[in-house]
Amino acid sequence: MKDLNRLSAVEAAEGIRTKKFTSEELIRDCLSHINERENDIQAWSYVNTELAIRQAQKADRHQSEGGSLGALHGIPIGIKDVIDTKDMPTENGSPIFEGRRPQHDALCVAALRRAGAVVMGKTVTTEFANINPSKTRNPHNIEHSPGGSSAGSGASVADFHIPLALGTQTGGSVIRPASFNGVFGLKPTLGLIPRNGLFLQSHTLDTIGVYGRTLEDLVLILDSISIPDPSDRHSYTGSVPSYQKEYLKYSGHFPKFAFLETPAWAEAYPASKSAIIKMTEILGRSCKKEILPSPFENIIDFHAAIFASENAHYYGKYLDTHPRLLSEKLRTRLESNKDITARAYLAALEARELIYQSVEALLENYDSILCLAAPGPAPHGFETTGSAVFNGLWTFLGVPCLSIPLLTVDGLPQGVQLVGKRGEEEKLFRSARDLCKKLDGKLDENYTN
Amino acid sequence: MKDLNRLSAVEAAEGIRTKKFTSEELIRDCLSHINERENDIQAWSYVNTELAIRQAQKADRHQSEGGSLGALHGIPIGIKDVIDTKDMPTENGSPIFEGRRPQHDALCVAALRRAGAVVMGKTVTTEFANINPSKTRNPHNIEHSPGGSSAGSGASVADFHIPLALGTQTGGSVIRPASFNGVFGLKPTLGLIPRNGLFLQSHTLDTIGVYGRTLEDLVLILDSISIPDPSDRHSYTGSVPSYQKEYLKYSGHFPKFAFLETPAWAEAYPASKSAIIKMTEILGRSCKKEILPSPFENIIDFHAAIFASENAHYYGKYLDTHPRLLSEKLRTRLESNKDITARAYLAALEARELIYQSVEALLENYDSILCLAAPGPAPHGFETTGSAVFNGLWTFLGVPCLSIPLLTVDGLPQGVQLVGKRGEEEKLFRSARDLCKKLDGKLDENYTN
Repeated sequence: MKDLNRLSAVEAAEGIRTKKFTSEELIRDCLSHINERENDIQAWSYVNTELAIRQAQKADRHQSEGGSLGALHGIPIGIKDVIDTKDMPTENGSPIFEGRRPQHDALCVAALRRAGAVVMGKTVTTEFANINPSKTRNPHNIEHSPGGSSAGSGASVADFHIPLALGTQTGGSVIRPASFNGVFGLKPTLGLIPRNGLFLQSHTLDTIGVYGRTLEDLVLILDSISIPDPSDRHSYTGSVPSYQKEYLKYSGHFPKFAFLETPAWAEAYPASKSAIIKMTEILGRSCKKEILPSPFENIIDFHAAIFASENAHYYGKYLDTHPRLLSEKLRTRLESNKDITARAYLAALEARELIYQSVEALLENYDSILCLAAPGPAPHGFETTGSAVFNGLWTFLGVPCLSIPLLTVDGLPQGVQLVGKRGEEEKLFRSARDLCKKLDGKLDENYTN
Repeated sequence: MKDLNRLSAVEAAEGIRTKKFTSEELIRDCLSHINERENDIQAWSYVNTELAIRQAQKADRHQSEGGSLGALHGIPIGIKDVIDTKDMPTENGSPIFEGRRPQHDALCVAALRRAGAVVMGKTVTTEFANINPSKTRNPHNIEHSPGGSSAGSGASVADFHIPLALGTQTGGSVIRPASFNGVFGLKPTLGLIPRNGLFLQSHTLDTIGVYGRTLEDLVLILDSISIPDPSDRHSYTGSVPSYQKEYLKYSGHFPKFAFLETPAWAEAYPASKSAIIKMTEILGRSCKKEILPSPFENIIDFHAAIFASENAHYYGKYLDTHPRLLSEKLRTRLESNKDITARAYLAALEARELIYQSVEALLENYDSILCLAAPGPAPHGFETTGSAVFNGLWTFLGVPCLSIPLLTVDGLPQGVQLVGKRGEEEKLFRSARDLCKKLDGKLDENYTN
């Protein structure tokens, strides 16, 4: 045990490439650490030790035979259990799908394998990637929630089980666990990472995202999985750069940030408010508070209308086919979603483009929007997965969001969220890079509620 | 008065081009005929004699100065009054818009003008192109409805006021008036004719169409107005041929027709059923009865769900802003539309592509689908505009439909409808051409109920 599991993906890929260690050694350290911690954290719905080691050995063999190496060669990655894997069960966090074995890998999983990744296992999702909390615990304090729905992905990366994991966001399911678990999380532009093979709950909202302990790791993985999905009319159709190349570029100036309280501000914890306000003060002239015009103030309701409408469409049938295998929380929610009117749904869809235009206009004058990633740190107990109020609004707009583990509130991580224009992930990465560098060592204070 | 108004658009364009007569002479004959008939037919919401003559004189001047001539040079065209015209009011059939003067021509009107057309005036639409009957009368029997909502366009062309008119269809508003008034009507593929400048009531359904007394006239006008609309995500994006060139081509064989009763069959009049069945018998082996697989049997409900949902979205606000200026019929309908659930709407949208695939598969083996254009001839009286039950299903699928005035029931016209694949208008035109030729003189019987 050399603690290889603590390396970032970039470091581990470099170590394997330069033969400092093998993928099998890396995977064995990860498995050993998982074995040690899983009882407390419960981040995994499926790990098959032998299968993981076999993949690593195959990667090592390929390398020793002089094969060309993908960007993620030999790197273990966790896959949220709503994303199909052909060699592991995909149960969508529900007994309805117990033991389900998909015939094919999801497009994004196939892309990861092509890049050389080792699929380490399936990470715990809340039931149907929805609201009912999972068994997973927060590694910073196991009495606290890791958030949801990508609970296992956020916690496993934070707890050094693996360097990278895939999650999904419909409300706040990538960014909120990133904030609660103190890791980097990217919810990219809608459809940038292909959704074919994802258990869909809302075609307008569902977005696959990634977790890592460093910004560079997110940049690394995104290059391997930003591919079009011809079967999905919401697939991102703009051009996609090399994020690694773009990341090395100088921004030309220190980025300008538009600080938005957002309509979620009233729900934020006082200490979280103080922490981010202090941060904007440190940024001085590089950060200015802005307000978006109407109908931005209704954005939380618009998101809710679309989520409820499409959720009823995709999940409503389970109320009829498997009522007893649904949790009471999900059942109650789906029952109430059935009544959402088409009129509310269409009004929200119409508002979406209108509001996005005002976000786009704002970002003509700024590099990124800056706001809280969650209203506060991970809540104590497991009654809920915490509030997604700072996330649904951006998911609704289909814009890229990045959570950066910059703040500490009540002794727990509190993420700062950067938001950009659709399809401008590379700009978001550079803004985050410059921001982290500037604030390094200046945010050690623990804010308490 | 030389009765130039009785010419087809193709004949009139040729007459002007070869200087047999001027556009002004043509327009004056049309105006004179309108003046004579309008008291009975009431097809027009706006005709400005001087403005029409000025346009004609300008066209004639352009020609005498040796200017190049568009395909519709000097030809009068009627515009349904839900389509914007910059030099005439556009009132959407409602006192809410009394005297409204749009700043711009609709894209399709601008295209007509570029092709040299004279915008003759605005034809009567039902209130909001919806269900409440208009004042227009059927020229075949003024005690009967001309259908709706493109009542004035269908009646004015049938009654020789003008050779060509634009209409719109959300349920059956192009094809039904074509059938009732005994003219040719084309509801093309969704978005083939641009909708910018149309008073929208359903983005998934609203389709601009055309009326003429000959098939060749529809071919002629379609070439001038099949242009993309970058502002409309439902604009047709496939390639568009020269319909006039395609129309001259030999089909290679006499077309094969799939006769579909459709789920509307139970509502058809007995004599209309007999008439079309007799027609299919005359066609013999060229026509075969077919049945489409599930969920085709629910298509009428799917169409209704989308119509109601989007109608509530676009028109719902008038319930609040102008409740007293809405007819009771429309008000009642909009009130009930408010309750349609998003779940029903999304289920219908999903079914749409599924059903279209089965239509596409059927049309691998046939040139066109053949069915009734309306359940019977124009109804007596003006309580309703008649049933759109044979039309909504095809509007729902966004496929091109052509009504051909082939049959006679109760002494009134009964249209036969041809339906094709999306974007295959040219094939539909050729099928209709061959069908009309084959049946010429064989369908003189008057079927009575």
